[in-house]
Amino acid sequence: MSKVPLRGVYAAALTPLNDDLSPDLKSLVRHYKWLLANGCDGLAPLGTTGEANSFSVDERLSVIDALGGSGIPMDRCIVGTGSCALTDSVRLTKRVLDAGGRDVLVLPPFYYKKVTDDGLFASFSEVIQRVGDSRLRLYIYQFPQMTGLDLSLDLIGRLIDAFPKTVVGVKDSSGNWPNMEAMCKRFPGFEVFPGSERFLLSALKAGGVGCISATTNVTAPMAAKVYANWNSDNADALQTALIAVRDILEAFPPIAALKQLLARTTNQASWLNIRPPLMRLTEAQVQALFAKLEAVSFETARAA
Amino acid sequence: MSKVPLRGVYAAALTPLNDDLSPDLKSLVRHYKWLLANGCDGLAPLGTTGEANSFSVDERLSVIDALGGSGIPMDRCIVGTGSCALTDSVRLTKRVLDAGGRDVLVLPPFYYKKVTDDGLFASFSEVIQRVGDSRLRLYIYQFPQMTGLDLSLDLIGRLIDAFPKTVVGVKDSSGNWPNMEAMCKRFPGFEVFPGSERFLLSALKAGGVGCISATTNVTAPMAAKVYANWNSDNADALQTALIAVRDILEAFPPIAALKQLLARTTNQASWLNIRPPLMRLTEAQVQALFAKLEAVSFETARAA
Repeated sequence: MSKVPLRGVYAAALTPLNDDLSPDLKSLVRHYKWLLANGCDGLAPLGTTGEANSFSVDERLSVIDALGGSGIPMDRCIVGTGSCALTDSVRLTKRVLDAGGRDVLVLPPFYYKKVTDDGLFASFSEVIQRVGDSRLRLYIYQFPQMTGLDLSLDLIGRLIDAFPKTVVGVKDSSGNWPNMEAMCKRFPGFEVFPGSERFLLSALKAGGVGCISATTNVTAPMAAKVYANWNSDNADALQTALIAVRDILEAFPPIAALKQLLARTTNQASWLNIRPPLMRLTEAQVQALFAKLEAVSFETARAA
Repeated sequence: MSKVPLRGVYAAALTPLNDDLSPDLKSLVRHYKWLLANGCDGLAPLGTTGEANSFSVDERLSVIDALGGSGIPMDRCIVGTGSCALTDSVRLTKRVLDAGGRDVLVLPPFYYKKVTDDGLFASFSEVIQRVGDSRLRLYIYQFPQMTGLDLSLDLIGRLIDAFPKTVVGVKDSSGNWPNMEAMCKRFPGFEVFPGSERFLLSALKAGGVGCISATTNVTAPMAAKVYANWNSDNADALQTALIAVRDILEAFPPIAALKQLLARTTNQASWLNIRPPLMRLTEAQVQALFAKLEAVSFETARAA
């Protein structure tokens, strides 16, 4: 393994779909490789942006298998395996290890609400113990806007204490910067990835390790500049330019907007395919998106 | 098929678990049969109360297969098949039809929030079309406290209009009585089941068809009396007694409380098994629960 701990700009990688809405594994591997060649230090496949929870477990396993067989370094991938059912999380996590990976991103079980810290601890604990593999490195996936569950610092601390070699970090997509900063301070060595490049520079200054973001599917080259120059005089200007693009993308349904951008930059219309309940942008949204991006001179072209 | 449309008191049936937290199929069939012999007109397996989303699809399929092979009339069962992934919902729904059933209870895809009515419509529509079976009768499962999605009357109306022979009813667990009443009025012939026996009498008076409730796992004999006598002078008194028990049960985590009651009434300790993130009641909660039920003379004894 080349890099422990992980560090840098990660893309919460999109999942291209065939017209029957199944994962398009060939385009997927091509996109993953493009990301790694264009500013991404790593990938987080099968997260929220990857529409993972809109796929059956078998479909998610097919993505893991395609990734494992792609030649992409598995130590640069943090694969989403969190599910409502701990038995699903266990099966997916084992498959990541079988495919040569070690890093997984795990949502809390997100169907039930108002559950206790004890219940959430028990769920993560069951997954880790049932997988039972010392290679495993687990990142907690904090995203209360989707899960309805706001994982407390106390819960995260309990998990770190119980599984210090396994529970190694967090992706925090809450947008709650004080919470991310508090984790950096309270848990030294714990790898805090903000879920948006909006917080990339702040995170690096506070002891975080990078970012894992939906929008780095298209902003990775800009984010990479911030990452490479975070300790330079130019860092603030680079971060400001990056935030200007993020601001635009955030004003639209993000996954649909990113797929729209990919369809244009790759000239591949199937990138527009998206699974319900998510929907494509309307034509009016498409026009507005591209007009706004043009105004900030955002480079949407890329090698196919 | 003996009864179309469905009508009466349904239990959102609990799922007993083995000590390894897998479904205990033998105890499950025994419990289902007890419910049908003790006040339930029908069963809703694999719903929220049945911890369905805490099970893998394979585990849910094993429950459907056990149900299909149990001798229980499948036309008295509305089986939960809703999942985040429409491909999972399709697979589960097809298995219900293969097992001799026709009625399914379908959650909206519940991972993503702030989705559009178009997206939710597309999700239900894809499931119905991919199953592609004219026998199918689909009940919409409204439970915003768990899903974070409040299905609008307009959306439900669109689904009824598009699939009039398939989208036949709703289980509304929102606790929002005006919404249930509005559905009874706006959609004649649409089968409105409140998700609690608290609304049983009101629903029957407003044109609803019964209830599907977690707590009828233990209150079914009392609820059956309300149902049988809803148009009599005694109805209000029967409903008031039923609500008194519901009030007590609602003050505790409901699934854990019900499993505690079942463990006592069946003298089978494995009924306490529950999947994280849900947890057993604490000893203090257990004492409080039984003390309160004793005060209302609630009969917890039953044949094993």
